[in-house]
Amino acid sequence: MSHGKQFTLYTHIGGPNGWKIAIVLEELGLTYESVYLDFSKKEHKAPEYLKVNPNGRIPAIIDHRNNDFVVWETLAILEYLVDKYDKNHKVSSTGQDKYIELQWLAFQVSGQGPYFGQASWFQKFHAEKIPSAIERYNNEIKRVFGVLDSVLSKQTYLVGDKVTIADLSFIPWNSGVVNSSLVPDLDIEKDYPALTRWHKELTERESVKKIYATRTSLQKN
Amino acid sequence: MSHGKQFTLYTHIGGPNGWKIAIVLEELGLTYESVYLDFSKKEHKAPEYLKVNPNGRIPAIIDHRNNDFVVWETLAILEYLVDKYDKNHKVSSTGQDKYIELQWLAFQVSGQGPYFGQASWFQKFHAEKIPSAIERYNNEIKRVFGVLDSVLSKQTYLVGDKVTIADLSFIPWNSGVVNSSLVPDLDIEKDYPALTRWHKELTERESVKKIYATRTSLQKN
Repeated sequence: MSHGKQFTLYTHIGGPNGWKIAIVLEELGLTYESVYLDFSKKEHKAPEYLKVNPNGRIPAIIDHRNNDFVVWETLAILEYLVDKYDKNHKVSSTGQDKYIELQWLAFQVSGQGPYFGQASWFQKFHAEKIPSAIERYNNEIKRVFGVLDSVLSKQTYLVGDKVTIADLSFIPWNSGVVNSSLVPDLDIEKDYPALTRWHKELTERESVKKIYATRTSLQKN
Repeated sequence: MSHGKQFTLYTHIGGPNGWKIAIVLEELGLTYESVYLDFSKKEHKAPEYLKVNPNGRIPAIIDHRNNDFVVWETLAILEYLVDKYDKNHKVSSTGQDKYIELQWLAFQVSGQGPYFGQASWFQKFHAEKIPSAIERYNNEIKRVFGVLDSVLSKQTYLVGDKVTIADLSFIPWNSGVVNSSLVPDLDIEKDYPALTRWHKELTERESVKKIYATRTSLQKN
């Protein structure tokens, strides 16, 4: 690729999932060029992009230093990145903790993302207002926060004694709720103190601050 | 554990997710005792079970030959099982194909399961009938079938040249749609011929026939 960076990252300015990958690329000091797809122009469903990701979603990466190896789905991308480029395990686990890391990553992509996404959909985008659907997904946000809080009240991080990709993967969707009024009757600091402590520590990392500054500046334009 | 089997599998008679694990345990010839939780008695939210899985969902496994190691989330369980007990790679990939396998597993747990589950919820269990919600999730079933069909029309399996856990993981939710009238205007054989061929081959495997016979006999009682 002519941009000279190691990775091309197909992503989106608004959606949370691409930022997960950007955060971990920053943590690992890897170079990447972000290609922001314009969903209003259906760029994620265009034939050229479907050759990269037949699922027509973001994110996807191409590793230009590995024969243009392509991976999509955030969980698979994160695992690829740390297995190959986090040899010192700065943000990844070793031994059997790998499976606990995968467990929390799987909970994030299957239990947090889709349901937080449905809460957002029925509140902001669905053509009719359906209180029972909004309530269903807002309750699921509270349930997921409760699960995380119950674990994080007994340990500092999700896996082992340091921040890993498992923790980092929760940032964008959690920020989407913490920094919005999506769930009106939520008092996060009072109801989920351990989650609050953890989320605050994660968002104060240099990688996260850099990525959110980029995101804010892009959304202003 | 007094049952003498290698694994305890916490699962459920009805839901699709536990059967994924049972199929792969059968494929690998591993011994397991299934503990079917009764959701109507809230056994999945009972304190004893939350010690195993703080998320209060099934499946979860305990490996009694590995110091009672516990893993939950189907994707993490499947990866643990094949990394540790599929040394000949009967149903798992090697080298970089591992990440393509993870990619499809992640698509299954984040893109298929939750959305097929919502389709089922709004059609069968939601207190009010909401046609626009039913339509939303039925459309998502068609979209996921379309993605799988587009890939499987160009290759026999999702990863490499053999059946892997990536393929097997799709069976229970796909069967739930193929063998029901959940999506009334669906002509699967006509609209998704490659998916039909693949799903049929998968369900004819000995492991799958055995598991579905068990499921049928349990549901009769």
